[in-house]
Amino acid sequence: MEMNNYSLILPKWVSKEGEAGDVVLSSRVRLARNLKGFPFPNCANNQQLSEIGKTIESAVQIENCHAGHFNILRVKDIDSIERMMLVEKHLCSPQFIDEPEYKWLIVNEEQSISLMVNEEDHLRIQAMASGFAVDFSLDLANKIDDCLEESLEYCFDENCGYLTTCPTNLGTGVRVSLMLHLPCLTMVEQIKKVLSALNHVGINVRGLYGEGTESYGNIYQISNQITLGRSEEELAGHLKSVCRQVIEQERNVREALYKESRIQLEDRLCRSYGILTEARLLSSEEALKLLSDVKLGVELDMISTVDKVKLKELMFLSRAALLQKVTGQEIKSCERDYYRAQLIRDYLRKSE
Amino acid sequence: MEMNNYSLILPKWVSKEGEAGDVVLSSRVRLARNLKGFPFPNCANNQQLSEIGKTIESAVQIENCHAGHFNILRVKDIDSIERMMLVEKHLCSPQFIDEPEYKWLIVNEEQSISLMVNEEDHLRIQAMASGFAVDFSLDLANKIDDCLEESLEYCFDENCGYLTTCPTNLGTGVRVSLMLHLPCLTMVEQIKKVLSALNHVGINVRGLYGEGTESYGNIYQISNQITLGRSEEELAGHLKSVCRQVIEQERNVREALYKESRIQLEDRLCRSYGILTEARLLSSEEALKLLSDVKLGVELDMISTVDKVKLKELMFLSRAALLQKVTGQEIKSCERDYYRAQLIRDYLRKSE
Repeated sequence: MEMNNYSLILPKWVSKEGEAGDVVLSSRVRLARNLKGFPFPNCANNQQLSEIGKTIESAVQIENCHAGHFNILRVKDIDSIERMMLVEKHLCSPQFIDEPEYKWLIVNEEQSISLMVNEEDHLRIQAMASGFAVDFSLDLANKIDDCLEESLEYCFDENCGYLTTCPTNLGTGVRVSLMLHLPCLTMVEQIKKVLSALNHVGINVRGLYGEGTESYGNIYQISNQITLGRSEEELAGHLKSVCRQVIEQERNVREALYKESRIQLEDRLCRSYGILTEARLLSSEEALKLLSDVKLGVELDMISTVDKVKLKELMFLSRAALLQKVTGQEIKSCERDYYRAQLIRDYLRKSE
Repeated sequence: MEMNNYSLILPKWVSKEGEAGDVVLSSRVRLARNLKGFPFPNCANNQQLSEIGKTIESAVQIENCHAGHFNILRVKDIDSIERMMLVEKHLCSPQFIDEPEYKWLIVNEEQSISLMVNEEDHLRIQAMASGFAVDFSLDLANKIDDCLEESLEYCFDENCGYLTTCPTNLGTGVRVSLMLHLPCLTMVEQIKKVLSALNHVGINVRGLYGEGTESYGNIYQISNQITLGRSEEELAGHLKSVCRQVIEQERNVREALYKESRIQLEDRLCRSYGILTEARLLSSEEALKLLSDVKLGVELDMISTVDKVKLKELMFLSRAALLQKVTGQEIKSCERDYYRAQLIRDYLRKSE
């Protein structure tokens, strides 16, 4: 199978390990902003939506925000595979591409920053990074925000803070989220208890692609529920401290399992590795489950022949649209499992 | 893991592929004989059993039967692991070692010929070979038989032929059996129909270790039910012609599956290969099932990195007693799965 150069396809941050990379896959900060003088997107007419787009587009062009070159994409001009790929790379929400009219997606070259125009709010600024990097992502998002504010006038209220379409985003408009890999908490069935404890301290838990999506491969997205009444730093600080506790819990269970049933655990993880490298048909769900096992095996030094970064890249590349991009061909849905298995096999062989 | 030299442990024929080796693992011919002047073993007293042993022992020592050097073993002097190993190598029946007193096992150096003394009959002569080799094994067994008859006087009746303890062996006293690997007939669930058809034409079907044992790894032992009223050649000819039909049926299903669902089949067999080479714990039953899948994969050119002969050797070496012999240590039964997985991994790695 000829492969397109994945480095052009994947966001650069994916290929970095990042802090606490044994548990934290990635960090993301998202700011919700709306422009003064326009109704919220759900109430705006097409002309207004169009003007909002043009206003933000020119602000991005005027202020380069020290973020390198920005690609400005009109969602309606993007084909359906590319659109799906944007979701798979977490550059936009699944909802954003469902109705592509009057929507813009603005992405920097490293694909660490993305701006959604006319999603739920006029503007959503998003910064992503590998591992446990809340401060870094928050700084980055704030820098873009401050910079764009030179050209844009935001809806802001002295008492309420930033005004947003949905009141849950009112105030700072910030949502900090972390993608966590929690295989051992899941294995010993402590995960439900942990997740429900998070809910009690104002932390949301979601699936891989955000609200309403399922958790596959023992990957959980946690984020702050509240955006009002506290500063961005306080919100981020709270999430960080809670996250540190979850990391600690996951690491403790890993250590305990390693001590108490090393062979059984190693057997399970190595079998997954065997299947991953030999199967001829892999659904995206099974691939993610196996990749999750193999990642744990590598973290626990039970599997030594696989590069951690390649595993993380495969967690992305084995997704349906990215798979088609990387193999350079449109693949019928009934043939995807075959190409996915082939891609994974070839990819892991290269890393040996 | 340090391994003892397996070539000293396994019968030489195991490491040969043999005719129709894609379906027929091995052929075996067994002759039942009793000495004139002694009661059958189930009626004989200890002194008589002892005399029978000595008589046969000295016949073997006088006639060397052109079969090279024979090892004469008193079963009661063999430790329990070695005894189990003799069963695993099919050199004697499981019943034979259960009550070790007054029993002798006589084996040639290649372990292709074995004589059981005081099993159900005074003497059972057995010859084994790889693949579809009924004529070869029958010749070999007959040669030993003729040769021993120079020194021994058998119970023989002009009308009935050779007299045996159990009337089912009366007549020629010959049982010809073939060990068949029938994964595809099993997969498409035609196996029951095929096996019941065999019963209707006077062919017995048994498990891996003979009467009353189960079939693992899609391996079936077929043999003639009748020993009376026909010549050895007729009996062998009938079994051979039936066996050729079963081989044909298995090959046809393999071809059909290859044509109609190649990827699904390849996926299944390659997954088994992945598990076999990566698992850390393997029961003997699972190991045999996986080895069976991998053998089929190799036969269908879906798996190219494994040597057929090594697979056949592993079907033996992964058995409990042989495993202990080959690893050179006594292994507690709870640790066997661990050592079995390690042996298989190391062994297959060497063959790559």
